[in-house]
Amino acid sequence: MTGDEARARLLALELDEDAVAILLAHFEDADRRGKTGHGLSRVAWLEKVEFDPLARPSRTASEDGFERWDGDGALGYLVLDAIVRATLDSPPAHARVVVAERCFPTGVLGYWVRRLAEGGLVAALTATSPRRLPPPGGKQPLTGTNPLAIAIPSSDGRPLVTDVSMGAVTHGDVLAGHATADALVPFGGEQSYKAFALAVGLELLVRSLAGDEYGAVLMVARPEYDPVPAFRALAGDTRLPGD
Amino acid sequence: MTGDEARARLLALELDEDAVAILLAHFEDADRRGKTGHGLSRVAWLEKVEFDPLARPSRTASEDGFERWDGDGALGYLVLDAIVRATLDSPPAHARVVVAERCFPTGVLGYWVRRLAEGGLVAALTATSPRRLPPPGGKQPLTGTNPLAIAIPSSDGRPLVTDVSMGAVTHGDVLAGHATADALVPFGGEQSYKAFALAVGLELLVRSLAGDEYGAVLMVARPEYDPVPAFRALAGDTRLPGD
Repeated sequence: MTGDEARARLLALELDEDAVAILLAHFEDADRRGKTGHGLSRVAWLEKVEFDPLARPSRTASEDGFERWDGDGALGYLVLDAIVRATLDSPPAHARVVVAERCFPTGVLGYWVRRLAEGGLVAALTATSPRRLPPPGGKQPLTGTNPLAIAIPSSDGRPLVTDVSMGAVTHGDVLAGHATADALVPFGGEQSYKAFALAVGLELLVRSLAGDEYGAVLMVARPEYDPVPAFRALAGDTRLPGD
Repeated sequence: MTGDEARARLLALELDEDAVAILLAHFEDADRRGKTGHGLSRVAWLEKVEFDPLARPSRTASEDGFERWDGDGALGYLVLDAIVRATLDSPPAHARVVVAERCFPTGVLGYWVRRLAEGGLVAALTATSPRRLPPPGGKQPLTGTNPLAIAIPSSDGRPLVTDVSMGAVTHGDVLAGHATADALVPFGGEQSYKAFALAVGLELLVRSLAGDEYGAVLMVARPEYDPVPAFRALAGDTRLPGD
């Protein structure tokens, strides 16, 4: 699918020009980074799910160290985009926790934190999604794949971004036909209880703050130090996550 | 080693009664939970490392949504204990990020967040430590084992606590003779690049906020929802992390 075709099909879903631009920028970045399950392939998925194309998120609480947002039926991409823009417009004096209720789907979490790091902020973001991971040895899914993305600005102009899903494959991989649904278990083989424990902790962290519908929790802060250049130098030829 | 013997040996290191009580409570809890590498076996380790027994942490910045602490040469156990007590004494209106500079060793991170959750607060804590994890296929260690611990209060009186180190074994396991040093690689076998990416993200998150010496970053918040009882019911007979 070309960007133009995707644009036309998204407009046909009655999303407005601004919303389409936000979604396209996310999908095209995902495809460029090889995360095709979160790329333009999602347009066909959006054509099949029900959502309100006119819904927009609202900020329901705003203090320097804490914000709460309500997706209010809007696509999660639009919720996270609004949070990223608002945070860059008005960064915290030191640090801020941002809770997003009703925020789904969230796409590639690394995309949102990278934008914050490009704007000079350290960010860590996690989000819940449909229960797809069973415990090791079990069948019934108990948690979402619950990725954790972390981005650190760098004085060399290249933020370091990590973005790890707790699944051995992603649901996006399954949607894109790169994996079968039964491969969607916690990663780690014999030690998959560790990835499952991370998924459980993140699941309940988000649910305790954002409620029973899918949500997201962001921690964002002004860095006091600049560790990335020395870390890249130490790593030498090792390819670092997100690079 | 008995608790009484440990107490006598810690007092002989010129730690005062309060500090010894804090360390003993942590070590004995670690032993009870089977984390013997962080239990009373650490007394012999403390006898070999250099530290200032009289040093105590100080809070260098304090706002509702942000605090900064400096360990100032004190054992990390004492820094985290002081942070836990101060947070329970004066919890945030919504959420707070706490940065601890010079905070080592930190012991079992789950111990500290469990106490916060027993006091009604959601908490997520990570900390850096000596570089011990090489990248997959590499030799030179680039990150600490960098655990992430998350605790969620529950109306059933039993907080859910997850505590996951990114190493296939812990340095405590190595110290206690339960594993060899070359087993200290990122967990996950074929997918150990995921645990390594988590370790890198957490390493640089802490370093960007707390600097080049070992530090810790805590996010603590008042829960708005109570997801643990329903999660335990859904899990049924599955043993959940930390239970």
